[in-house]
Amino acid sequence: MNRNILLVTCPDARGIVAALSGFLAGHGANILEVDQTVLPEDALFCARFAWEDGDGALSREGFEAAFAPLAEKFSIRHERFDASEKMRMGILVSREAHCFHDILARVEDGEWNVSVPLVVSNHESLAPVARRQGIPFEVVPVPKDDPAGKAAAFARTEALFREAGCDFLVLARYMQIVPPSLIAAWPMKIVNIHHSFLPAFAGAKPYAAACRRGVKLIGATAHYVTEHLDEGPIIEQDVRRVTHREGVDDLVRIGRDIEKVVLSRAIRWHLEHRILVHANRTVVFA
Amino acid sequence: MNRNILLVTCPDARGIVAALSGFLAGHGANILEVDQTVLPEDALFCARFAWEDGDGALSREGFEAAFAPLAEKFSIRHERFDASEKMRMGILVSREAHCFHDILARVEDGEWNVSVPLVVSNHESLAPVARRQGIPFEVVPVPKDDPAGKAAAFARTEALFREAGCDFLVLARYMQIVPPSLIAAWPMKIVNIHHSFLPAFAGAKPYAAACRRGVKLIGATAHYVTEHLDEGPIIEQDVRRVTHREGVDDLVRIGRDIEKVVLSRAIRWHLEHRILVHANRTVVFA
Amino acid sequence: MNRNILLVTCPDARGIVAALSGFLAGHGANILEVDQTVLPEDALFCARFAWEDGDGALSREGFEAAFAPLAEKFSIRHERFDASEKMRMGILVSREAHCFHDILARVEDGEWNVSVPLVVSNHESLAPVARRQGIPFEVVPVPKDDPAGKAAAFARTEALFREAGCDFLVLARYMQIVPPSLIAAWPMKIVNIHHSFLPAFAGAKPYAAACRRGVKLIGATAHYVTEHLDEGPIIEQDVRRVTHREGVDDLVRIGRDIEKVVLSRAIRWHLEHRILVHANRTVVFA
Amino acid sequence: MNRNILLVTCPDARGIVAALSGFLAGHGANILEVDQTVLPEDALFCARFAWEDGDGALSREGFEAAFAPLAEKFSIRHERFDASEKMRMGILVSREAHCFHDILARVEDGEWNVSVPLVVSNHESLAPVARRQGIPFEVVPVPKDDPAGKAAAFARTEALFREAGCDFLVLARYMQIVPPSLIAAWPMKIVNIHHSFLPAFAGAKPYAAACRRGVKLIGATAHYVTEHLDEGPIIEQDVRRVTHREGVDDLVRIGRDIEKVVLSRAIRWHLEHRILVHANRTVVFA
Repeated sequence: MNRNILLVTCPDARGIVAALSGFLAGHGANILEVDQTVLPEDALFCARFAWEDGDGALSREGFEAAFAPLAEKFSIRHERFDASEKMRMGILVSREAHCFHDILARVEDGEWNVSVPLVVSNHESLAPVARRQGIPFEVVPVPKDDPAGKAAAFARTEALFREAGCDFLVLARYMQIVPPSLIAAWPMKIVNIHHSFLPAFAGAKPYAAACRRGVKLIGATAHYVTEHLDEGPIIEQDVRRVTHREGVDDLVRIGRDIEKVVLSRAIRWHLEHRILVHANRTVVFA
Repeated sequence: MNRNILLVTCPDARGIVAALSGFLAGHGANILEVDQTVLPEDALFCARFAWEDGDGALSREGFEAAFAPLAEKFSIRHERFDASEKMRMGILVSREAHCFHDILARVEDGEWNVSVPLVVSNHESLAPVARRQGIPFEVVPVPKDDPAGKAAAFARTEALFREAGCDFLVLARYMQIVPPSLIAAWPMKIVNIHHSFLPAFAGAKPYAAACRRGVKLIGATAHYVTEHLDEGPIIEQDVRRVTHREGVDDLVRIGRDIEKVVLSRAIRWHLEHRILVHANRTVVFA
Repeated sequence: MNRNILLVTCPDARGIVAALSGFLAGHGANILEVDQTVLPEDALFCARFAWEDGDGALSREGFEAAFAPLAEKFSIRHERFDASEKMRMGILVSREAHCFHDILARVEDGEWNVSVPLVVSNHESLAPVARRQGIPFEVVPVPKDDPAGKAAAFARTEALFREAGCDFLVLARYMQIVPPSLIAAWPMKIVNIHHSFLPAFAGAKPYAAACRRGVKLIGATAHYVTEHLDEGPIIEQDVRRVTHREGVDDLVRIGRDIEKVVLSRAIRWHLEHRILVHANRTVVFA
Repeated sequence: MNRNILLVTCPDARGIVAALSGFLAGHGANILEVDQTVLPEDALFCARFAWEDGDGALSREGFEAAFAPLAEKFSIRHERFDASEKMRMGILVSREAHCFHDILARVEDGEWNVSVPLVVSNHESLAPVARRQGIPFEVVPVPKDDPAGKAAAFARTEALFREAGCDFLVLARYMQIVPPSLIAAWPMKIVNIHHSFLPAFAGAKPYAAACRRGVKLIGATAHYVTEHLDEGPIIEQDVRRVTHREGVDDLVRIGRDIEKVVLSRAIRWHLEHRILVHANRTVVFA
């Protein structure tokens, strides 16, 4: 089945829903899903259409030309995806294993339509986990207090992921701050998991900070990486209840289970083209 | 602003989204919200459109005639609502006060676009709560072990709500089983709150049953009332965590807060015409 | 039944549990509940005992003298409460009604062992809600940009609550910053509800800030008031899921239901002497 | 550090807390944790003590003799554990991989103090997952419609786990009904994960049943296995919100993440000797 996705944003306008669904239906598409919203502050119309079939004007080759007049009329920014296409996910890890284990298990069990052509880490320790599943694993150490060495490491990392043809990257508890160059190479295509309920406890050691503040729930946040640390558009968050009995080590342990599931939901939504970004916020057509 | 709602169901068909949005847009409507789904087992298309403006063909008077050809072509069942219209909510209560307090507070604070022309109870005890807010409260005792007396009581209840012009009824912990005649008079228009996570613990004394079974979460369920006790279409559910420390009395207390919020969400969705019922299940366009 | 509560904190020491339970049992008490914890960073032992019966040494009159040797030996700080004693709760409100409605409904239904001798507000608007339940309601306007007038208003407020004999105060969405003098008069005895998941979105307009940041869960926090705004010891928190569909007004509406239930849990725990405070964090023996 | 655990149940009696903590402290123990409860219907006292140090009377060899007088006086049933002892966990799986992956990842990362001497499955498919981690994996097919063959298969299974010296068993989505003989061999020592919020949807295909009933939350339940299918004492449960958009396949996918985390919590509590069973319910001193 040739299932396709169209993501659009444009200034809100009378007739836009009818125009878009009319365009698709007029070219023989069977519309399977429509989801739309208007962001009120910006009067921005956002929508996601999923459809199957359709004539040549909806094919990958024909789409842009056929859609151009409508796009111009409504000032539409759009992306069209072929849902059957297997995306290529690059992964960055350090020594924390839980998110990595969880992702690789989902990949192995075929939960997602994805391939993992490359994992890059600044440590050796998780190499066996990748390799026993036949997944390439490269170690690129990131030196401390050595800006030039760091830049070289990230240039190498970027080159490796480019060669591997990665469509997007996942930071699965990669404990390094990635540089602007890498972010620019995959804009709104790097998913990070931060181990707190952002914007609370941004930065390092959030569980220790949460313990010190005495919060009664801890959380995790998946977001797209931008140049501003822990401030990118939030994709998903979740929390779990804790009490005074839980020390920092317990929060770390409980938090792992939140991180895994929050990151995996964000990856799924990214893979299924369910996420639009506007003004540092996400619209998730889940 | 003249905001309107259209709820439709029909056999899934190619072109249905385009046809519906084209119909509205073609009559000058500004479509504000579209939400649709296809129930896969039945290939049933369900949708909710919200729009403002539009020409006479979309007015209350003109709509049915204008829509008829489309409805016939796609075998559409539909309902059109004027969102500004204040619905009239009848309430049935017994002696349990918490849901009643909660509903009246929301009414008083203007949270909902609703009026409460009448409350009926089989007990006197909550009369002061209604009357101090200026809400009519009628006591209709329901005799035990007296089928004729019971039938008379419910005939009276039905007559009272009819006279009061109630659009729908809410059973706010009304501890009586309502008869088929009342259900037939307000089909899919009687919202009940059951104090368990259905289908677990249907019937009487669910908190005692939950305690005996040793569950680790308790819940509440808002559903439309049908002839089958506690088996009507579920509108909303929620749960809260409990432990061995909580006895039946604690579950009752904790449960009250779940019941209140679950019932209030169901009422809001009913008032905003967000609920479709098919095959004893609800589609909630929330 | 004469049910009593003992809250203790002391440096962690070998034998402390046995010594405390031996003291109570040795005086004929039937220990009903023991809950204890050790805060690891400070090696601080914290415990709560509930007991009934006991000889004169455990009575209100005899307790301090009988307990003194043990308290000295282990450097114990303690509080003893008679659980049957009805506490007197003062309430401060502005114009937001939901928490106030919720509290008064619980009071009316007898959910808590509490009386409400006085409500103080800077506005008239909620006076009828209190008065129809026979609860005294005083309006004390708080002038803007007038430090002397503000100080006078709070001096009056403090005097009113003192005359009313209030054991503790609840800020039920009271939109004023209370001065150090009032805090000093009821130290760790003023419960506030803040409409965000602290420490995220401290200060004014948290729902607008949450909307701007695009969080996927919103929350509320009950905490004791200290001189540092929104930084006092957290008693309870909860959250609810939101999406891009919810604008600020929706967050405000959804948030109300979180605020009500979080504040009510904090009040119950305070009333049942379940909360210990240490190093700006709470131990809640729930 | 020699950390020890004592679990006790006895008829509730005046002085029991003081007697137990006095016994431990009197033998030089440093009591680290006390948790107790009284089940009201049965007036049953339940407690868990964790302690370190202590004289010979608290050692594994000396304990029973030293504790006997107290046990007799209060009719105590008790179990004493050495917390440093690594328990041996046997696992049963079929073809569903997610719980198995999750457990093995936790074992590999050292999250639990446990070893896995043996996995038994009725299918080959997960053998590579175990073997690449060096964990023995035996295939014991369970024939359909062949009672004698089935009995032989379970006799073999029991013998294998006995030889492997397993302290307890985990059914990680093992899709067979285990016979009374196996249950009798590990009484209250077989942990199962059922893919519904019990008691709702006991038996086969719970996600399909949940979809048909139109519930708004789905769940999973970890419980000890008894002779009554899906009716054993519940250890842990959790739920997640679903909507009409989710079909059966989505519920299966969403449910996997609930199952994993619920089962892992139950395993941890079992390993840490935090669970008491009485009258088909658990007390979990979490």
